[in-house]
Amino acid sequence: MNNETGIPVARSGPLTGVVILDLTRVVAGPYCAMLLADMGATVIKIEHPQDPDLTREFPPLQGADGNAISGFFAQYNRNKMAVSLNLKQPAGRQTFLDMVRKAHIVIENFRPGTMEKLSLDYATLTEANPAIILTSISGFGQQGPNAPRPAFDSSAQASGGLWSMNGTVEEPMRVGTVLGDLSAALYGAIGTLAALREADRTGHGQWVDISQQDSIISLTENALVTYTATGKITVPEGNGHPFVKPYGRYACKDGYVFFGAYTDKFWREACIVFGDEALITDPEIDTMAKRFNPDVHDRRVKPIVEGWCARHTKAELEAMTGARFPLSPIKGIDEVVADPHVRQRDMVIPVQYQGVDFEVFGNPVKLSGGTCEQHASAPGVGQDNEAIYAGWLGKDEDELETLRRNGVI
Amino acid sequence: MNNETGIPVARSGPLTGVVILDLTRVVAGPYCAMLLADMGATVIKIEHPQDPDLTREFPPLQGADGNAISGFFAQYNRNKMAVSLNLKQPAGRQTFLDMVRKAHIVIENFRPGTMEKLSLDYATLTEANPAIILTSISGFGQQGPNAPRPAFDSSAQASGGLWSMNGTVEEPMRVGTVLGDLSAALYGAIGTLAALREADRTGHGQWVDISQQDSIISLTENALVTYTATGKITVPEGNGHPFVKPYGRYACKDGYVFFGAYTDKFWREACIVFGDEALITDPEIDTMAKRFNPDVHDRRVKPIVEGWCARHTKAELEAMTGARFPLSPIKGIDEVVADPHVRQRDMVIPVQYQGVDFEVFGNPVKLSGGTCEQHASAPGVGQDNEAIYAGWLGKDEDELETLRRNGVI
Repeated sequence: MNNETGIPVARSGPLTGVVILDLTRVVAGPYCAMLLADMGATVIKIEHPQDPDLTREFPPLQGADGNAISGFFAQYNRNKMAVSLNLKQPAGRQTFLDMVRKAHIVIENFRPGTMEKLSLDYATLTEANPAIILTSISGFGQQGPNAPRPAFDSSAQASGGLWSMNGTVEEPMRVGTVLGDLSAALYGAIGTLAALREADRTGHGQWVDISQQDSIISLTENALVTYTATGKITVPEGNGHPFVKPYGRYACKDGYVFFGAYTDKFWREACIVFGDEALITDPEIDTMAKRFNPDVHDRRVKPIVEGWCARHTKAELEAMTGARFPLSPIKGIDEVVADPHVRQRDMVIPVQYQGVDFEVFGNPVKLSGGTCEQHASAPGVGQDNEAIYAGWLGKDEDELETLRRNGVI
Repeated sequence: MNNETGIPVARSGPLTGVVILDLTRVVAGPYCAMLLADMGATVIKIEHPQDPDLTREFPPLQGADGNAISGFFAQYNRNKMAVSLNLKQPAGRQTFLDMVRKAHIVIENFRPGTMEKLSLDYATLTEANPAIILTSISGFGQQGPNAPRPAFDSSAQASGGLWSMNGTVEEPMRVGTVLGDLSAALYGAIGTLAALREADRTGHGQWVDISQQDSIISLTENALVTYTATGKITVPEGNGHPFVKPYGRYACKDGYVFFGAYTDKFWREACIVFGDEALITDPEIDTMAKRFNPDVHDRRVKPIVEGWCARHTKAELEAMTGARFPLSPIKGIDEVVADPHVRQRDMVIPVQYQGVDFEVFGNPVKLSGGTCEQHASAPGVGQDNEAIYAGWLGKDEDELETLRRNGVI
């Protein structure tokens, strides 16, 4: 029992005592809230009783006896509580505002305008609680001509410029993960925590407006300033590098590795490790400028690196390299999961959902004071209705029964 | 003048009054500190007087009279102050500890062990200031067998599993941006702000340990839990989608667009918008399951979508689509910069560095209380030595002169 809030959970981590109302669905919003839950915040996931988060049915699906329990949901909703609530009913809206009065943060990723339609816009929330922070994650943000457009990861990658920089010149490609969703989640967490500091100090919350397109734009490295300063448009490099050779993906005995000789020093280190010290003083290839020449590279340098890699396995190459020059096996997700270093850093952790045990990725924020993502569970729909509505808000059994009977919870 | 700290800068934003000592170089650390500077923190970039951040020379380079001023540096170091300091000299180390006593946060991205070698490990910092937060960003984190390996974005992408999921099955590709650096910066900011809340409340700081490999692993969506739950290894999809067709990159009159009919509803909306209502009831292609069939897709569906897109320009397609179904032009960075929506959201902002005006990306964290990234500047090496060493630390001119003469600053 947390005495400060009356919420019946014991939490550890730097955000202990922070109460977050999580109205989000799918990925961007749920991941934002999950990151904060892992660090100790009490996150109450709020779902429509008949139309809960659709990712409760997203693959991978597991479970005995024909049950289909979602590992996807387990991963992104661990460490949360859950209540059911129909915000469209007046009693549902009132119950939500009752929670807003006692909470610190609301996170939502509806299409812009939805909170207004529910009469739960930012101004209404601040009337209930001037310190409340509203974090809104959407495809294109809360204002601007494209604000009404729906949020899809692919739209963000396309409109934010990253699709045009990934893959090859012949076929630019969408990045192979939902980066528009995930990066918006991270910026959402950053904005929320910054706003929390101001609210802690001044008693005033604010509205944090995160756009997936904005988030993608911020991940284009120096492409934007390169264009505005020089007019040059960044194009995909595939597995090449704009000013480093040798660089790329090389076949070895049992797969592929990345090798990149970013500097002359790294090139010399590689020559030594692979027993080709004589190459260090070879006048045709002894500087980056010479090795970068396409003819020299293709005729001399490329076959050398290919030969080095072809003679060894990924594990051998990783061990030989140590900290001397940039080389890493290109690992499939199976190899990532098996990596002892990854295991030691708790980046594969157990999470339980509906009685099924899953292993999901851990939280990359490692704190010396500890977090609480280990052995977490993800909640069922409305699992914590009693704890939240009776234990936290103080509703009696008659009130709860009325809410149930009317389909509000 | 900030009366609380004595640092002579007026800052706005939720992190006003937070003082950050920024020992970082290149991308991951500087971007982490920049995000916090944009939100009002006072960031003091600390560089070796003879060996400053090498990105001061990174392209794009601009400037009249043969000057080569870096837009790269301007982008990632806006809104910071800068002092020069040689940490290897005893007087430099002492001056650093003088700053630690008055600061909230230290951010560093040296290779693990470097802070110890400088006798500036976390324990030493907390002796000087128990509330200090140390945020360390590295390739593989502060502990574990791979900790000594150097930090390269490509190594993180390779070892974290994302390289194996991007591109095509035939040639998996590194993601076309430095995502290992950038994501570590974002997690660093999240961990720092969470630790700041605990320090504000308890007076105790902590050590935030961010690994680029961990950061990449966390961006693999459901690949990890899919593998642990089912044994299935996620492979690249190129511009395809594992369970949606039609989906992908389609040629239009003046470029390419993304179109994705994720649901039957979106398919019907597209049929209406493109004047092909009759297709809605076409019994061969009226459900996702039928359209997903490879033969049906290639013979019937693909040519229909190609025809829709080929008849229009990107701008026409974007306007026709509105909020009805997922479609977006695949924009080059030039088109991103020209996008009125992007401009309205302040995602292209002016920054000055060494007298040169650059336009760089804005901060995706949009706060109703405001931030301070507009019209920022990036500092020269040691530009704020007087303000910090005299104005903040209270050193007199004799002390400063001694530090200068001995090459400490």
